[in-house]
Amino acid sequence: MSAAQHPLYARDAAARRIIPGPPPASTVEDERLDVWGFKDSGFQVNDEGNVEVLGKRYAAGGDILTELLPWVRGVFDSPVTGEDQNPPHYPPAIPDAVVNAAFTAAVGNIFAAEKRSDDPELRLRHGHGHTQEEMYAIKYGRIPRVPDLVVWPTDEAQVIALVKAAQEHNVCLIPYGGGTNVTNALICPENETRMIVSIDMQGMNKILWIDPVDHTACIEAGAIGRNITSQLAEHGFMMGHEPDSVEFSTLGGWIATHASGMKKNRYGNIEQIVQDFRLITAEGSVLERFDGNPRESTGADPRRWVFGSEGNAGIITSAIVKLFPLPAVQRYGSVLFKDFEIGTQFMYDLARAGNPPASVRLVDNLQFQLSMALKPPKQGMAKLKSSAEKLLVTKLLGYDPNKMVACTLVFEGTEEEVSIQEKLLYGIAKRHGGMKAGGENGERGYQLTFAIAYIRDFIMNHWLIAESFETSVPWSGVLPVCERVKQRIQDEYTARGLPGKPFITCRVTQVYDTGACIYFYFAFYYKGIDNPSEVFSELEHAARDEILKAGGSLSHHHGIGKIRTPFLRRIQSVSLINWNRGFKKAIDPGNIFGVGNHAPESRE
Amino acid sequence: MSAAQHPLYARDAAARRIIPGPPPASTVEDERLDVWGFKDSGFQVNDEGNVEVLGKRYAAGGDILTELLPWVRGVFDSPVTGEDQNPPHYPPAIPDAVVNAAFTAAVGNIFAAEKRSDDPELRLRHGHGHTQEEMYAIKYGRIPRVPDLVVWPTDEAQVIALVKAAQEHNVCLIPYGGGTNVTNALICPENETRMIVSIDMQGMNKILWIDPVDHTACIEAGAIGRNITSQLAEHGFMMGHEPDSVEFSTLGGWIATHASGMKKNRYGNIEQIVQDFRLITAEGSVLERFDGNPRESTGADPRRWVFGSEGNAGIITSAIVKLFPLPAVQRYGSVLFKDFEIGTQFMYDLARAGNPPASVRLVDNLQFQLSMALKPPKQGMAKLKSSAEKLLVTKLLGYDPNKMVACTLVFEGTEEEVSIQEKLLYGIAKRHGGMKAGGENGERGYQLTFAIAYIRDFIMNHWLIAESFETSVPWSGVLPVCERVKQRIQDEYTARGLPGKPFITCRVTQVYDTGACIYFYFAFYYKGIDNPSEVFSELEHAARDEILKAGGSLSHHHGIGKIRTPFLRRIQSVSLINWNRGFKKAIDPGNIFGVGNHAPESRE
Repeated sequence: MSAAQHPLYARDAAARRIIPGPPPASTVEDERLDVWGFKDSGFQVNDEGNVEVLGKRYAAGGDILTELLPWVRGVFDSPVTGEDQNPPHYPPAIPDAVVNAAFTAAVGNIFAAEKRSDDPELRLRHGHGHTQEEMYAIKYGRIPRVPDLVVWPTDEAQVIALVKAAQEHNVCLIPYGGGTNVTNALICPENETRMIVSIDMQGMNKILWIDPVDHTACIEAGAIGRNITSQLAEHGFMMGHEPDSVEFSTLGGWIATHASGMKKNRYGNIEQIVQDFRLITAEGSVLERFDGNPRESTGADPRRWVFGSEGNAGIITSAIVKLFPLPAVQRYGSVLFKDFEIGTQFMYDLARAGNPPASVRLVDNLQFQLSMALKPPKQGMAKLKSSAEKLLVTKLLGYDPNKMVACTLVFEGTEEEVSIQEKLLYGIAKRHGGMKAGGENGERGYQLTFAIAYIRDFIMNHWLIAESFETSVPWSGVLPVCERVKQRIQDEYTARGLPGKPFITCRVTQVYDTGACIYFYFAFYYKGIDNPSEVFSELEHAARDEILKAGGSLSHHHGIGKIRTPFLRRIQSVSLINWNRGFKKAIDPGNIFGVGNHAPESRE
Repeated sequence: MSAAQHPLYARDAAARRIIPGPPPASTVEDERLDVWGFKDSGFQVNDEGNVEVLGKRYAAGGDILTELLPWVRGVFDSPVTGEDQNPPHYPPAIPDAVVNAAFTAAVGNIFAAEKRSDDPELRLRHGHGHTQEEMYAIKYGRIPRVPDLVVWPTDEAQVIALVKAAQEHNVCLIPYGGGTNVTNALICPENETRMIVSIDMQGMNKILWIDPVDHTACIEAGAIGRNITSQLAEHGFMMGHEPDSVEFSTLGGWIATHASGMKKNRYGNIEQIVQDFRLITAEGSVLERFDGNPRESTGADPRRWVFGSEGNAGIITSAIVKLFPLPAVQRYGSVLFKDFEIGTQFMYDLARAGNPPASVRLVDNLQFQLSMALKPPKQGMAKLKSSAEKLLVTKLLGYDPNKMVACTLVFEGTEEEVSIQEKLLYGIAKRHGGMKAGGENGERGYQLTFAIAYIRDFIMNHWLIAESFETSVPWSGVLPVCERVKQRIQDEYTARGLPGKPFITCRVTQVYDTGACIYFYFAFYYKGIDNPSEVFSELEHAARDEILKAGGSLSHHHGIGKIRTPFLRRIQSVSLINWNRGFKKAIDPGNIFGVGNHAPESRE
């Protein structure tokens, strides 16, 4: 290559930058308001009493899961059937809108009629995320306070005008991204008497530019993960950020929640991917920087404090993110281990070796069983092969079906990078007696993530209530946290004399040099329990208490919202809490951004 | 390995953690007060008029650099000789101490007599870092305001008591680490009328524990880099943080300046290495967290704002850092390229390939020449070989001695990791016509870093004034920044009719996915210039102006201190500046931590 042909020769940013077209026409209409996900996807019980996967969007679409309900009845020790349902009463009673007439008039001057709405179901949708409390409430209860108005700004000037109007008329503003949080972060403070406006950022959803030399892109904060992915791919790039919610969550939401992606080993977490961002402050001015990146030391940086601010700090309007070329190779894989302890030791050694694949996750035995139960039964030769494999693994090789665990793998990179990682990983796995179980199982395990949220809403109608929670913990605490949380849940369950058996399972989803992220699913059969959502919350809180006692963090990537606020004092010194309170007061003395996450009432 | 033999089986932290002994007896006495570094090291002109490297601490010790002065006379176009000196007048006049009697009495109750001092030279040393302004001032001018008292706390309780006393008696506190900053960060505000106390943290210098399972260590903030390195190495570990100042700077200083290490490609920058820290606030309480690591999402985190706070936020007392095992293999290397543009293109492609060595640095032609001039001449066969090599490179292969550049490499890791990186890197180098130039040159280039600061102080006595500054910039801006800064310096120099030729050279010292760090050295011959230090500052400011215009950041890792404060408004919106001001006011309304970095006077 001559020097003049090299990418760095293209010095004119305006000439080299790509300005993509608009994203795919908004597909918000394709999403359900009452449950997770797309309208055309989900689960239902068919006429034969078997669970069926709906739609064509996912690989599993059309699968008939004959083993699922029998398995569920066994592990929950509960009479779950297709027929016995708890039909939801969505929509619940929705509170009337509080109207600040002067502000409403101002909003009429900023937003066209179709970019603002006081429709009750839209207001409701903007007043919750996807915790079990919230999903239970919209189906079987109610949400006492929801936004009074929803607006969809399409540019930064509208956001600024809105904030200034809110400041003038003392209105509370709550930014809204994809509405996928699982922390009650969007729940409106019950005692908020001001008019509450939800700012749905999905009106600002464009990729403003792609720089193919610097490998950066400037993207509006309301852009949805799936659109970012598809639009960047058209130009050979990716952001690499793949949280479980990537189909529906937004760039701004990722920053505001300090998000983590499943492929962070290769691409980094959100704080490593985002190079810069713009935010509209409570004064209606733009918080921004004008000098270069990628990394700098220019004094204490309040922008770093915005990561995880969950709506308290202002409205993020756009960000400059790192790009990666689409990987030449993507290969899935999986490995079986005899038990969770051995699997965890494998994960530790893999992290120590320093070059793990883009994603590596270890599921415990119960979750391994779940993934098996979510497979459609094989037919013909495939069935024979599958049975023979099971026999080989369980009888000849001595894997106990009630102890064995699985590790799912996603390798991305050049052929050479992937080959090196595979060789390293499978070598370590072998030292731990691991057995390769193929790419198909690996892909299934990875994609299962996207189905889980649908399953949760589906089973709630069948008397099963469920939720996930997570933590990060130093390596030495991984096994203790997993064991103690399971035991604590069991103890609390027994002490309350609750029906059947609790379902509690975990996986190690992220590895770091000094520790790991652990992700739990917890569920139980709630028929006959008076206040199942509250009971669930109690047990979930007990689990969190146990996590903290065992040395885990309060959250690895879900965040605090309101659900974890009562624990803040347990993890932060009074001075740290006071600093946060002081920072917030300094930048938003009128509490215009009054979503109330990390609520002051827990402070001293 | 059986599961019970695995490191993760060691669940009892108290049992597995290593408590190292105290660090090597304080070697502060080995350090010079008036210039950089150890008393036994440095440069001098010997009786033959040649520059000689003093001491045995560094590999170059004892070298006679016969080519250096002739080369210097050429590139500066100036009559620099060994005899013609500008003898320093150190110590300068040192201002009398301001004494707050009530506070001084309180300090007497907190600190033993040997842990506090009002010795003028010690007070002076604690009132400056290593900018050219400061070094020029202590030799040829004066520093108008220095701390009035120095204290050496040995535990956190003393720091707390000190802060409370300062609060009660309205005294200004300035934390001091290694005193190596190059941003005027330790310069006392001239208009500070309160008593100023320098808190020398080197009294808190212990490694409190090493966790060999989690690969973490808890280290007191005053521990010096060289002691951290040697003490961790005794147990097979390293922190991997190697700033140019690592011999003298401290852990707390690294956090406070958002430092970067030369081997960050493998070990990360300071914000990636530090997992947690404790800080004493202006109220005298401990800012700390109680939950686990390694990564979390627990709301907006003021601790992230402390990185880069440069003494404004409080006193960092200890930190938990990541550890890495000592690498099995460390190999140096070097590659020659025909010119800087080609070398930069190589660096870009290397960064794109994603697996660079621990350290890779590209020096421009002038810096390459400097490294040659700093070599002692070869004798006998080595001389013949060296001449033959020069002939080969310059005549047969067509490398122009006035254009060619060099890249120095440090590979660390397992033999396999290093081999993979070498193969990848040398393959990319070959595509750019690069020629391998061996490990010896690589090591020399890398170690040169540690000599430069000595050289700067040495040449100041010989009428040469010098300083380094740095920036980070997106890849597309690397060449423009280098070219424009050199041109701007030349233009400013010419416009002022200054003597001889300015010396301005750069290297690319860090690669990132989206950009790089560029490090400049600037020097000129100042004999006959009335106010050389001021002229230097003017030109340095012009260079910074040019960096910003060309898209660079205000600083990659040196920080702001006071030297870059006038530029803050250029890189931050008013709202960002106001947020910082608001944060500071919220946590330290009495400005007890009144070092005045990122000074409010530049704010609006």
